[in-house]
Amino acid sequence: MEVFEAARTLLAVREYQDKPIPPETRRRIVEAAHLNASSMNRQPWHFIAIDDRDTLRQLGSIAQSGPYIARAPFAVVVCIEDSRFAVSDASRAAQSMMLTAWSEGIGSNWAGFGGLGGAKAILGIPDNSNILCIIPFGYPARRVGKGKKERKPLGEVVSRNRYGQPFA
Amino acid sequence: MEVFEAARTLLAVREYQDKPIPPETRRRIVEAAHLNASSMNRQPWHFIAIDDRDTLRQLGSIAQSGPYIARAPFAVVVCIEDSRFAVSDASRAAQSMMLTAWSEGIGSNWAGFGGLGGAKAILGIPDNSNILCIIPFGYPARRVGKGKKERKPLGEVVSRNRYGQPFA
Repeated sequence: MEVFEAARTLLAVREYQDKPIPPETRRRIVEAAHLNASSMNRQPWHFIAIDDRDTLRQLGSIAQSGPYIARAPFAVVVCIEDSRFAVSDASRAAQSMMLTAWSEGIGSNWAGFGGLGGAKAILGIPDNSNILCIIPFGYPARRVGKGKKERKPLGEVVSRNRYGQPFA
Repeated sequence: MEVFEAARTLLAVREYQDKPIPPETRRRIVEAAHLNASSMNRQPWHFIAIDDRDTLRQLGSIAQSGPYIARAPFAVVVCIEDSRFAVSDASRAAQSMMLTAWSEGIGSNWAGFGGLGGAKAILGIPDNSNILCIIPFGYPARRVGKGKKERKPLGEVVSRNRYGQPFA
């Protein structure tokens, strides 16, 4: 799938088929994150690739914003160092994973922003590392629309040359 | 270009040919950001698409981390609301723009993290909005390598099922 097509159509998917993701696809997903650029090439991240059913169930049971993690065949936990660059760098890596998966017919969703504290103990994450998000991946249980999205009009969020000047 | 190929090979490009980016390509780049997902669909962002030579020169002269903006034919200034979600959401949108451009042969680089204060006045950005980054885009002045990157070994930044457990 072409990149713009993937970016244009990418949707959050929270219901997955009971179907494993092939190992080579899982590897491409984590490689897309591993190879991403970062501020001063610091790579302030660690990715835990989870395909163990029981661990996924445990994560789903503690993640306030992501109970559906329990029913995903695969997830990546994105851990970051405590630095002002790390949130940006790792969010970009997360986006590369989600787009790579989407282009192979795999949906995902960003679960994060609080309520993930319990996951550190489950996964043995060291004290100096924090969870930015957990991204469950899976083949969509239902057919997903093609790029129909509720968004503010382009003219409201895009300007040309100066804030508030019409883009087109 | 396939998404994984784009994610795998994406490199920072800071030297650009003196060649404009076609309007339809500029539009795809900003659409990739406009259509991106965000926490609770808040879309806490504003994108200023800049193709005015003089404005690009001014931005290059004030951006401590990005003097090369002055020589780019195009740039997008990513503005965000002051919320804990906005940095993640807008970083993901930025990544979609950079990958979309890259797949069409256009390089870019993230210039940000301080030193951009002066840009708010130049661009008329309101007080309640902040600049996350400026991303200049352009056709690379030199041939870029294909995926040769200095990265930590995969085994150091990726675990399987538990932090520190070998991925493969």
